[in-house]
Amino acid sequence: MKRVHNFSAGPATLPLSVLEKVQSELIDYKEKGASIIEMSHRSPEYTEVNRQAVERLKKITGADDDWVILFLQGGASSQFMMAAHNFLNTERTANYIDTGTWSAKAIKEAKLYGKVHTSFSGKEGAYSHIPTNDELSFVDDAIYTHFTSNNTVAGTQFSTEPKSNAPLVCDASSDFLSRPLDLEKYGLIYAGAQKNVGPAGVTVVMIRKSFLEKQRPEAIPTILNYQTHVEKLFNTPPVFAVYMVNYVLEWIQEKGGLSYFEKFSQEKSGLIYSEIDRDEFYRGTVEKDARSKMNVTFRLPSEDLEKKFISEAASQNLMNLKGHRSVGGVRASIYNACEMESVKALVDFMSEFKSKNG
Amino acid sequence: MKRVHNFSAGPATLPLSVLEKVQSELIDYKEKGASIIEMSHRSPEYTEVNRQAVERLKKITGADDDWVILFLQGGASSQFMMAAHNFLNTERTANYIDTGTWSAKAIKEAKLYGKVHTSFSGKEGAYSHIPTNDELSFVDDAIYTHFTSNNTVAGTQFSTEPKSNAPLVCDASSDFLSRPLDLEKYGLIYAGAQKNVGPAGVTVVMIRKSFLEKQRPEAIPTILNYQTHVEKLFNTPPVFAVYMVNYVLEWIQEKGGLSYFEKFSQEKSGLIYSEIDRDEFYRGTVEKDARSKMNVTFRLPSEDLEKKFISEAASQNLMNLKGHRSVGGVRASIYNACEMESVKALVDFMSEFKSKNG
Repeated sequence: MKRVHNFSAGPATLPLSVLEKVQSELIDYKEKGASIIEMSHRSPEYTEVNRQAVERLKKITGADDDWVILFLQGGASSQFMMAAHNFLNTERTANYIDTGTWSAKAIKEAKLYGKVHTSFSGKEGAYSHIPTNDELSFVDDAIYTHFTSNNTVAGTQFSTEPKSNAPLVCDASSDFLSRPLDLEKYGLIYAGAQKNVGPAGVTVVMIRKSFLEKQRPEAIPTILNYQTHVEKLFNTPPVFAVYMVNYVLEWIQEKGGLSYFEKFSQEKSGLIYSEIDRDEFYRGTVEKDARSKMNVTFRLPSEDLEKKFISEAASQNLMNLKGHRSVGGVRASIYNACEMESVKALVDFMSEFKSKNG
Repeated sequence: MKRVHNFSAGPATLPLSVLEKVQSELIDYKEKGASIIEMSHRSPEYTEVNRQAVERLKKITGADDDWVILFLQGGASSQFMMAAHNFLNTERTANYIDTGTWSAKAIKEAKLYGKVHTSFSGKEGAYSHIPTNDELSFVDDAIYTHFTSNNTVAGTQFSTEPKSNAPLVCDASSDFLSRPLDLEKYGLIYAGAQKNVGPAGVTVVMIRKSFLEKQRPEAIPTILNYQTHVEKLFNTPPVFAVYMVNYVLEWIQEKGGLSYFEKFSQEKSGLIYSEIDRDEFYRGTVEKDARSKMNVTFRLPSEDLEKKFISEAASQNLMNLKGHRSVGGVRASIYNACEMESVKALVDFMSEFKSKNG
């Protein structure tokens, strides 16, 4: 069995031990004579999977009983409109911090439902900057402040939560569970699972009941109402994806939880950024304070060298290093399940490539 | 490895050969050194999976180039509002045929967006009747006529498409690909995959471009606009679910396509209905003309006997025979992947149980 060093931005590499477990019980789950994906979502087996996943996520994040954990479908792209649909109306305003493609998409959807105050926009600076608290403006009566904690495209990340007068609503898709969260500051956190938490097809939504009380949507479809899902398991969930998330959460706990992964991400990203900063051959694309510990982006002296870099890396099993199609360059996505061994292999390759082509 | 006779209403039993294939390549997909669920949805590998699934579905259903195939998230519960949001507005009317729980839910969501004309309601008859064309009423200028082809809860099914003056919009979740479709009559078909087509987490949507031209929504979120998905792969799809659907479609082709499964379903359901009709011990719950070939529902002389039946069946590996919690009784769901062997084992058990308890 071959395993490459997989730097995909998402869907991304998963823990091998989780894949092995899933493989071993794919046809016969716990000697029940059927796969977990052949069982009703109301069966005792899936009910237990869901319960475990919720409990684990609460333990890992330190969420108390004011928090409800949901496993929904549709990704962050659905949460952009769903969050706004639930909490905004024509009389209401939310603050939005625009730090990239994904924030801009969230803003576009929110404007369909209510008023948007742009607290900051990094667009003119090609999204290479993450604002300090001094750079943010807020309206007094905002229902929430929305931000994108990590920008996979540019390779930026908030080093800590922005300071806001309203509860934070966060698109945490690309750094969820990579470091501790100060939950007190949040009302709602959503994350497509396919980076740090599992396979594509499930969106983790953490919502505070006390925040949900502020809900005042205009007429809202049943499936888009958070309350529907808080009350009960309303419709068929993406069983396989939640089942895998549950095992990834177990693996996160076994490894040592969020403080372990915070340190691990610092170490991994630190190694690559050190190599970038060694001289002028590699060039980081964003401000140093804004650098992401999840998606390390950099350029080479020319586009031809970038192509050569990506192609030669692939020949050494260092895969999926091409930058997002909208910005080019190189991007190494090093989420929780990316091993130190893979990062070291990449850094060695970078060093070698530079000495040959520098 | 143990395999039970699985009569789950959904998520439901899947072809063993498909599960075995998925298991064998779960960690290393086609010697690429990664699982298909660890690959970008824009990778050549997933692009090929998606292309194959679309092509296979077109071949199986006979869809021409006016049809677009989408793999979305959120199940039929999301399509209830999405279909209405795309095609209705306050000036427009759609016909809805109410043949059960799911139709009623679709109607509820549609009313948020436009006017609903109820063409027929089976509610007073406990949804045991499927209307003939003479029983249906339509408004002249309806944008579409919505119906639910099979009702998993009551165990009813349209024997053929209702005759309508407007294009049909069909929730085909529980009998999709179990028989040929007269596509000329349809504008839109949607189906949660977890009955006949794959695992939970993906919704197959077939839409005609010429029908999509009638789209006149009020302001619509990007992700809910069918046009968004017709134009391009907009957001991360449920990779694993689509990948499995592709293999189920391959299996459907190998078996002989929709005419094979139409005959197979007739035979399987025929065996159980014959046993029901043999005398008064078992009692079908719906009109004979309305009987579903996917979900065979019946009662026993008492609720105590029903409990005993379900429990003794389980001890003989005949699993998940309990009727929907809203109606009780016994339900055997016998979708495409339910083997004849399972149906025969059930019929044998029914006969034996009757002789002991009748």
